[in-house]
Amino acid sequence: MKKHGKKRIVVALGGNALGNTLPEQMKAVKITARSIVDLIEDGNEVVITHGNGPQVGMINNAMAALSREDPDQPNTPLSVCVAMSQAYIGYDLQNAMREELKNRGLEIPVTTMITQVRVDALDPAFAHPNKPIGHFMTKEQAEHAAKEYGYIMAEDAGRGYRRMVASPKPCEIVEIEAIRTLVGAGDVVIACGGGGIPVALNGNHLKGQSAVIDKDFVSAKLAKDLDADFLIILTAVEKVTLHFGQPDETPLDELNEEEARKYIAAGEFAPGSMLPKIEAALDFAVSKPGRRALITLLEKAKDGIEGKTGTVITA
Amino acid sequence: MKKHGKKRIVVALGGNALGNTLPEQMKAVKITARSIVDLIEDGNEVVITHGNGPQVGMINNAMAALSREDPDQPNTPLSVCVAMSQAYIGYDLQNAMREELKNRGLEIPVTTMITQVRVDALDPAFAHPNKPIGHFMTKEQAEHAAKEYGYIMAEDAGRGYRRMVASPKPCEIVEIEAIRTLVGAGDVVIACGGGGIPVALNGNHLKGQSAVIDKDFVSAKLAKDLDADFLIILTAVEKVTLHFGQPDETPLDELNEEEARKYIAAGEFAPGSMLPKIEAALDFAVSKPGRRALITLLEKAKDGIEGKTGTVITA
Repeated sequence: MKKHGKKRIVVALGGNALGNTLPEQMKAVKITARSIVDLIEDGNEVVITHGNGPQVGMINNAMAALSREDPDQPNTPLSVCVAMSQAYIGYDLQNAMREELKNRGLEIPVTTMITQVRVDALDPAFAHPNKPIGHFMTKEQAEHAAKEYGYIMAEDAGRGYRRMVASPKPCEIVEIEAIRTLVGAGDVVIACGGGGIPVALNGNHLKGQSAVIDKDFVSAKLAKDLDADFLIILTAVEKVTLHFGQPDETPLDELNEEEARKYIAAGEFAPGSMLPKIEAALDFAVSKPGRRALITLLEKAKDGIEGKTGTVITA
Repeated sequence: MKKHGKKRIVVALGGNALGNTLPEQMKAVKITARSIVDLIEDGNEVVITHGNGPQVGMINNAMAALSREDPDQPNTPLSVCVAMSQAYIGYDLQNAMREELKNRGLEIPVTTMITQVRVDALDPAFAHPNKPIGHFMTKEQAEHAAKEYGYIMAEDAGRGYRRMVASPKPCEIVEIEAIRTLVGAGDVVIACGGGGIPVALNGNHLKGQSAVIDKDFVSAKLAKDLDADFLIILTAVEKVTLHFGQPDETPLDELNEEEARKYIAAGEFAPGSMLPKIEAALDFAVSKPGRRALITLLEKAKDGIEGKTGTVITA
């Protein structure tokens, strides 16, 4: 249950909030924590989700390097690498959040929950793996990976070959009840890291999938499940713009459903970049009266919630 | 708060409950889940802790292999490897628990929480690193590791050199409030994996430590913090024995404080093996009237709780 007068906010952190290496991450989470604790200090309840692109790629590479050195260690499935990335990031992030809260005299528990997200094994995305992960390979390495591990490999951006995985839609956050319990107790929860560990039902068994789930779509799902008031998608731009990167670039303060659908149809938003953010924001905003989504920079989150900047997506 | 009439049990899983590789782990957790769900089906509340010896060693090796291949990736601290091992194990374990509960018609949320455990930076253990981790190295490799990473290396069991880390005592389970909230809500919680991520206070900052905390000591601490009725330490023997491995080996059904201290002083229990289990069991059993600890085999947990087997440690 939400506390009277408090706004519940799901904050989806982009990759730039986390850095590319551990030393970068340890610096980045401090800055991230400051922006998020600003929201908490203002009396909001906050739930945190985050991406894991560079991190899951790095962990995947580490586990593959181990397999090459130690024949007793089989290759580690992507789902397990996602789980490990949730801890790799969550540990630093919960630590930085705890410290920043304490520095401001706030005693609020912060927790990372290992989260599985159920996808549909028949999701059409599985027939079209289009999400590149891990490092670039030569043609020979790619052929080996395809033969040895059954990976689907494709040329990516002219820079070499990469493993391609499916990006199915999230159907259910498996650990939602526990997340709800902790959020209801007033804790800050870090959940659904990297879009969640992708699993599909097989009887009562949840089978890990070679997939990555879009973290913005999962964040919208989580915000709906928790009856949040706000979904904040933090990214590398202060506002969503039309004609992005053109001389007549136009930043948007607000975007309602009708406008959003029109601009999506007109191809205004780049697939794999701003488009999924707009789609996720819209998904949440139209799900119930009063729900709003905000897309802005990490350091502008507080100003955005106060209506001073960012792009607000409404029904 | 405990539900009326329910016993609260902290179950500490030993390494044999988890296996040495991922395929082994996926099999092992199914068997483990059966034994633990037996306890839940009987109306007990269960909280799960586990070791991570082989797993954190494997992850440590993987991250080191990555550093060798990719100079942009610095060496990963042990504390981060422990965090990753909590997810590596927790994901499979929570999944197996969820499946086994569902198979028996029980709808109980299962969650893994990334747990930090605070140690004292002045713990004398830091002056005497005596816990070997990771794989065996040659003398040359050991010298390189000492020079390159500042590792403390020592010959181990005549099989080569291994990294030695400190094993300080647990002072505080940082995420205890969140664990209490979930356990109070009736959830099955997996926490303090691998003894917890070792951290020490530095102002409001928690700094990761190159250490491993004994999982049985942490389990006793957790059981006390949660006001549990029972601590079950699962291991490779059905009962604690005197004169272990000798012709006059004597299994024990019960062990009170006085007897335990006498046998400990007589050197009956092997350091690094049965001794810390007895010490942890005793620590819990004497902490409050009515508390009892049980040491037995995984598959005998239910029989042990019912008083049919195992060794019960009492005040």
